[in-house]
Amino acid sequence: MKTYLSKRASGAKRSAIRELLKLTEKPDVISFAGGLPAPETFPHDEFAEIAADELHGHYENVLQYGLTEGSLTLRRALADWLRPHGLDLSVDQMLITTASQQALDLVAKAFIDPGDVIFVEAPTYLAALQTFSLFQADKIPIPLEDDGMDLNALEEKISEARAAGKTLKAIYVIPDFQNPSGITMSLEKRKRLLEIAGREDLLIFEDDPYGQLRFAGKSLPSIRSLDDSGRVILMITFSKVLAAGLRLGVLIADNPFMDVLVRVKQATDLCTSKLTQHIAARYINEYGMEEHLKAIREVYHVKRDAMVSALEEYMPKDEGISWTNPEGGLFLWVRLPEVIDTEEMFPRALENKVAYVIGNAFYVDGRGRNEMRLSFSLGTPERIREGIRRLAKVISEELVAKRAQTVSS
Amino acid sequence: MKTYLSKRASGAKRSAIRELLKLTEKPDVISFAGGLPAPETFPHDEFAEIAADELHGHYENVLQYGLTEGSLTLRRALADWLRPHGLDLSVDQMLITTASQQALDLVAKAFIDPGDVIFVEAPTYLAALQTFSLFQADKIPIPLEDDGMDLNALEEKISEARAAGKTLKAIYVIPDFQNPSGITMSLEKRKRLLEIAGREDLLIFEDDPYGQLRFAGKSLPSIRSLDDSGRVILMITFSKVLAAGLRLGVLIADNPFMDVLVRVKQATDLCTSKLTQHIAARYINEYGMEEHLKAIREVYHVKRDAMVSALEEYMPKDEGISWTNPEGGLFLWVRLPEVIDTEEMFPRALENKVAYVIGNAFYVDGRGRNEMRLSFSLGTPERIREGIRRLAKVISEELVAKRAQTVSS
Repeated sequence: MKTYLSKRASGAKRSAIRELLKLTEKPDVISFAGGLPAPETFPHDEFAEIAADELHGHYENVLQYGLTEGSLTLRRALADWLRPHGLDLSVDQMLITTASQQALDLVAKAFIDPGDVIFVEAPTYLAALQTFSLFQADKIPIPLEDDGMDLNALEEKISEARAAGKTLKAIYVIPDFQNPSGITMSLEKRKRLLEIAGREDLLIFEDDPYGQLRFAGKSLPSIRSLDDSGRVILMITFSKVLAAGLRLGVLIADNPFMDVLVRVKQATDLCTSKLTQHIAARYINEYGMEEHLKAIREVYHVKRDAMVSALEEYMPKDEGISWTNPEGGLFLWVRLPEVIDTEEMFPRALENKVAYVIGNAFYVDGRGRNEMRLSFSLGTPERIREGIRRLAKVISEELVAKRAQTVSS
Repeated sequence: MKTYLSKRASGAKRSAIRELLKLTEKPDVISFAGGLPAPETFPHDEFAEIAADELHGHYENVLQYGLTEGSLTLRRALADWLRPHGLDLSVDQMLITTASQQALDLVAKAFIDPGDVIFVEAPTYLAALQTFSLFQADKIPIPLEDDGMDLNALEEKISEARAAGKTLKAIYVIPDFQNPSGITMSLEKRKRLLEIAGREDLLIFEDDPYGQLRFAGKSLPSIRSLDDSGRVILMITFSKVLAAGLRLGVLIADNPFMDVLVRVKQATDLCTSKLTQHIAARYINEYGMEEHLKAIREVYHVKRDAMVSALEEYMPKDEGISWTNPEGGLFLWVRLPEVIDTEEMFPRALENKVAYVIGNAFYVDGRGRNEMRLSFSLGTPERIREGIRRLAKVISEELVAKRAQTVSS
């Protein structure tokens, strides 16, 4: 077996998380584990009408091969949609992808040789770590602070990595309502990150799945919109703002990089479905994104409120317990006293019909054992409340048991 | 620029063919260049009804994330469809992909390290060469004979490559109505190829986009169906049997390879759209493939007949000119006298409002300069006839001009 596999695939471990997630799929379990968008936000009836019209009337186009770069109709619709958000883009700066996961695959393919360094937030998006691992990147974790990546730590780690003779390529960040932490990077840090990247000649991979899902506080400009050097590659998935099942996103980059990324995408899948692209494009053109986003934001706002108020009500009063209170997105992050190991506690949570993702999964260096990610995207506020009540009970009991052990040992 | 790009992407050349193809897109040009399936074969009204029903009634499912392996509904439908074709598959042996191009990407990711050898037919599918190149494979060309790959040459090249200390990984073949040549590998050669692969411990990447599109002669079993060693990975795209725009295909493999391929796919795009998967699955279940395939085969049969009879009628009578007469698929291959360079002749073809793909593009070693691929998939038989009339005129004139040059020099 080993003799057939590539080195990159030999290192690809079976995802422990995937196995855990399977356990959470029973209907009586209230799962805060998956990062699934709320299905009530999918504009499905509008999609149904558009799909039927495209397939009846424009099938010669939508059922045929398309441009590798993506449908012009969709790229034009995106340009119009993103313009008020500080991104004045031409269609040549956009490449349509199979959501942000493919965008990550393409940037890794285009830029990462084995051993090349990517600096990542700690914790960070699990599936980005998988992609970077597959391309044998050296992922150097930089701690997250309440206002984003610790940039002093970043500068230190850059110096260390340079001193060690490594090839430094990129910094991967999720600046808005980060997955998994819910943390947003401050404007000051966005600007300083750009300065550091410029000085150190590094690319920035900016992953922005949730930026449009801000339901509180003031919008911040994307890092890409603050940059004039061309070193920021911005990835926006449609999974949370339209529907995950369309499998669509856009990668925004400038030449000479865009040329290379298009060639890489061509060798990867030739092109993305024009059917799904036209569903998205016509929805944006005919119904408009602003009204739709307003409604989605409200959905998640209510759910976050339900989760945060339930945490306040039910969680044990303990100074070792804290959680983030995100101003947008789908996730919040809970930190527990260090006696608790969220992986060890997981079976007890399942017994009590509630689930989360263990914090450890989002770190590259074994940290996060006393942390967990909670998604507030699914279910009614009542169900979220009930789930948090169950979770708080599990944590209380675990805390009592662990502290008894500590005292007795 | 060079300092940012990965080694694999630095080697990715801008495709000359892509540039040529752009020139063929004018409506007055009769293009035999693209490999596009005939749009009249797309079951678009049925798709429209299924899509509307799925989006109205099952949107919580089809617009959500799905399994990396692919929708169970689709894999079950495929198992039923493929069983009479000598493939008795469980759903665990199938991975749904973004058509065969993604299947190629996944196998390259899973199996190919830089410098690893893949033996390929010469000529072979252009976009497979691009994918293997991106993963820095050493592509060793093996000449095609009228009944498939020259297996004596393969054995020689295997010995040479072993003697040179190379790591040998796989043999890539398109056994039915090969792209670009239209040639089909004989049953005898399929069996001997398996023996060679077994003896030499090589994988076989079997690419079968056209196997179900046989309109003449007798069906041959896929190499995969003749194998019991698990070394054959079979890729079937839906692009030609349902519609290219669905961007769907299936990769068929056994464990332990399938486990690795699923993990690799997860890091590549998480999952494929369930909307397009359910359109395909329900079409197969509710309408059945056999009737549909019968109709498609007839469409291509008529078009091939039109092209071959026009070639017989219009092409200059010259012993240096020959073409294949495929029993299925979308392509045939024309060989011209060596004085002709099809790339040099290309502008003259365009002036005469006809286009083809230059033969050279399908070889890794600069051969094929006097060859060309013609696709008979698009247009009416009348238009195909007219296109061949134009092409034959261009070739006649080129031949006269070139031979005059040869005589005078």
